[in-house]
Amino acid sequence: MLTLHPSGARPLYEQITETLQREIAEGMLPAGTRLPSSRQLARDLRVSRITVVTAYAELEAAGAIESRGGSGTYVLPPWTPPRPRGHGGDTAASSAAPALPLWQRDLVHPVNLEREATLAHVLRGPLTPDTVGFAWGAGDPRLIPMTEFRRALADVLDRDGPTALGPEGGAGYPPLRQWLADYLRQNGLDATPDDILVTSGTQQTISLVAATLLQPGDRVIAEMPTWPGALEVFEAAGARVIGIPLERGGMPHDRLVDALENERPRLIYTVPTFQNPTGAVMSARRRQALCALAGQYGVPILEDDHVREVRFGQPIPPPLAAFDCHGDVIHAGGFTKSLIPSLRIGYVVARGPLREALIARKRTVDLFGSALMQRALTTFLESGAVARHWRRVSRIYHRRHAVMLRALERHFPPGSQWSGVSGGLVLWVRVPEGISVAALHDEAAAAGVGFARGAAFFAEPADQPYLRLNFAAVEEAEIERGIAVLSRLAQEHLRRGGLDPPAPTARSSPGRHAAR
Amino acid sequence: MLTLHPSGARPLYEQITETLQREIAEGMLPAGTRLPSSRQLARDLRVSRITVVTAYAELEAAGAIESRGGSGTYVLPPWTPPRPRGHGGDTAASSAAPALPLWQRDLVHPVNLEREATLAHVLRGPLTPDTVGFAWGAGDPRLIPMTEFRRALADVLDRDGPTALGPEGGAGYPPLRQWLADYLRQNGLDATPDDILVTSGTQQTISLVAATLLQPGDRVIAEMPTWPGALEVFEAAGARVIGIPLERGGMPHDRLVDALENERPRLIYTVPTFQNPTGAVMSARRRQALCALAGQYGVPILEDDHVREVRFGQPIPPPLAAFDCHGDVIHAGGFTKSLIPSLRIGYVVARGPLREALIARKRTVDLFGSALMQRALTTFLESGAVARHWRRVSRIYHRRHAVMLRALERHFPPGSQWSGVSGGLVLWVRVPEGISVAALHDEAAAAGVGFARGAAFFAEPADQPYLRLNFAAVEEAEIERGIAVLSRLAQEHLRRGGLDPPAPTARSSPGRHAAR
Repeated sequence: MLTLHPSGARPLYEQITETLQREIAEGMLPAGTRLPSSRQLARDLRVSRITVVTAYAELEAAGAIESRGGSGTYVLPPWTPPRPRGHGGDTAASSAAPALPLWQRDLVHPVNLEREATLAHVLRGPLTPDTVGFAWGAGDPRLIPMTEFRRALADVLDRDGPTALGPEGGAGYPPLRQWLADYLRQNGLDATPDDILVTSGTQQTISLVAATLLQPGDRVIAEMPTWPGALEVFEAAGARVIGIPLERGGMPHDRLVDALENERPRLIYTVPTFQNPTGAVMSARRRQALCALAGQYGVPILEDDHVREVRFGQPIPPPLAAFDCHGDVIHAGGFTKSLIPSLRIGYVVARGPLREALIARKRTVDLFGSALMQRALTTFLESGAVARHWRRVSRIYHRRHAVMLRALERHFPPGSQWSGVSGGLVLWVRVPEGISVAALHDEAAAAGVGFARGAAFFAEPADQPYLRLNFAAVEEAEIERGIAVLSRLAQEHLRRGGLDPPAPTARSSPGRHAAR
Repeated sequence: MLTLHPSGARPLYEQITETLQREIAEGMLPAGTRLPSSRQLARDLRVSRITVVTAYAELEAAGAIESRGGSGTYVLPPWTPPRPRGHGGDTAASSAAPALPLWQRDLVHPVNLEREATLAHVLRGPLTPDTVGFAWGAGDPRLIPMTEFRRALADVLDRDGPTALGPEGGAGYPPLRQWLADYLRQNGLDATPDDILVTSGTQQTISLVAATLLQPGDRVIAEMPTWPGALEVFEAAGARVIGIPLERGGMPHDRLVDALENERPRLIYTVPTFQNPTGAVMSARRRQALCALAGQYGVPILEDDHVREVRFGQPIPPPLAAFDCHGDVIHAGGFTKSLIPSLRIGYVVARGPLREALIARKRTVDLFGSALMQRALTTFLESGAVARHWRRVSRIYHRRHAVMLRALERHFPPGSQWSGVSGGLVLWVRVPEGISVAALHDEAAAAGVGFARGAAFFAEPADQPYLRLNFAAVEEAEIERGIAVLSRLAQEHLRRGGLDPPAPTARSSPGRHAAR
């Protein structure tokens, strides 16, 4: 039956598989034929039994034969794939969508819809045609130093070859961790490369920390308002967020003590520098006090230092982690907001068992990072291009910030509140009663102007009289035009509400106060 | 006191901030000085009160002044940053590492150490000098089509400019989802771009599905042995894994029915094609039967189709999801194993509320993907380079597979068991009693040969008489050398155990059976 070529280059079991397959296809071994036992065939062919067993396993995997336990191995009838569901059907029944299985109907959507809609919008990026991109959360992609980044990509691929396209596991590329340690030390934060874990961005860092430290039912203290991505993480972890309203750039001491005493939180989440969404900066003294409280109550703090490098010339305090005398501050940073979103690279400074647990958790959630991106970023950072980039965008964003402040002063209805910021990317604007931010949002979108609805930045879903406006990613003329559109729509709200506002006047109008 | 330039380009509040800062630094406003109220200063300077409030907020953030509630705003003494911890200290006490805070001591390491060590080793990549890389889990990075991939990167950056470095949120880059839908349809799986979510690789897909479907205490059916990354995910989710031993390429029907009846699992995880670690292929009939069982018991199946495109010429059945008549199969694939690890791109086919929940969960865990990587991959895929690549690596891995089989036959101690595979990247070898795989692993590592310890692929931590050997990423001469080293070490184990083995003989040695 079979002719084998033991000296041939191809393994014997493959020769057996193919011969049997051909004989089955040609009808020489019709369906129902009982094949010889593997022991028998091995003897007949003078090959090891493992060779025949392997060949039979192949044929069974291919659906050509079937082993029926003790009774032997049989040839099966040719197998026809099922017709794809809902595709190419010519009857009404076959083109209808299949009903969802029961297990799907049990799925409870885990997130706040308001926040979800805002995040989806915020993440669309600022370069959508015909939209003024006040909604976007990061810097202006048109300012990314493309030439330098492309050179870094090419240099890394030339230097490292295939290794540059491999995995970057564990704590991340060591030279990147070295650069980060040097950078953090310049910022007053003592760290070695062995204290650093490279992640896929600050959002992943928050998610890893939550997965490591939080159990369902735990409580987390956070500034209110705050970054909605963090709220999503804490809620997905089953934790309850204790929001503390910001006051002069930080959470008031007495409110913190109260929450620490009564709520026994497992984590404090804070954005001390250019807080998102308010732009507030926590003072050095408040940082000291917050670290002292964390040490006293034994509660870790996650510091989200998302955009430290975009600043307008005012001095800012060192990171919160620099004030940490007890090892309570977990410091998170990244390169999405101030450099290149597509890098998907952030980092976290953590020590001891926490760092080991974070490395293990990182492996569990996505196995390893991109060697190419980590290496290209390192080359870019080491070249000094990043310092030039940060200086340049700070200068440009500072101008856009001034343009937005002037436009707000000129156009926005009296009773609105905001205050300038000393860095970062966004302004936080409070509108007076009579303006529905939810409706304003939809009307503005229809008029080609996007912004982030304030409600998304609060733990409780409820309309909130706030807008977050990105000034960094929008060119000056567009800022003027976008604010004029928002102002006109807001004025219409007030008019419809019967509160006919006075004509907008200059910056000294007495009804305006700082929003924070 | 202050001179302002209302016509100057710089915002007024910044002029106020800087002037006050200079006066404080120069001692003109010593610590303790009470500043005028914001209302008073605004009146004096003829600016709006918001301008002064903003300036004071800046100064407070910088630690220069402090607002003491009702009693006014005061100049603070100059602030000195704390000395970094454990750095530059000149006494024994200050250079000692700080004790860990209490909350750190509570951290329970969530993973199986055996598995962790194996995964860390497996993920190191195959191009470590002086190591024969049988441990690595993916293909040979030296075979990555570098020129074509670099061209795809350059083309995308030329075409899309800064948009290529932005975020890729939601379900992922639409043309990539279109390519995937076409590809899946060619494989017999009906899918539209709207059924697909792009992830950061199959590991992230498994993790997202677990986070969406599993609660602590839930049960998950999985083949045993199986991919340790999946075991880590299920355990981290608090689920219990019900392992069903593989038999002829699949989980036996009666064992499955038994587990479905008695354990009420929430999920079935399977790797039906080139199973990891055994290389087994589930037959078409078993796929039909498994889908039918899932429909009958209302349990979703996660199909991990990790390396379908590396195959050695035998026909293989369509994906499990092609047999799915009830919408129970969640199909996961990716490009790590058969193309470029650094891409960090996988995908999942899911419909209905599950897909919406997965998109939301993906946003929660890492916000968005890399536009650059998703676009470069799309260009690469559309060019046809991937089909050429898969044909080429399949041919080369097939030869390496044959070389490894011959080397095992020639050298490995009698009583060892394995069987050839029809695709994929690895062989699964069972060693006879008397060989400690844990000890063999360490001895082999010392001799420059890596492999993955079988124990990592089981849910229960215990030494297991198995090795997983990657033949795909190792060149032919190295395979010979590496297997010879492993064989010599294994023979020594048997000799030390007093079981002096007969000299190894040819492939017909009667003690060998297929490992699966």
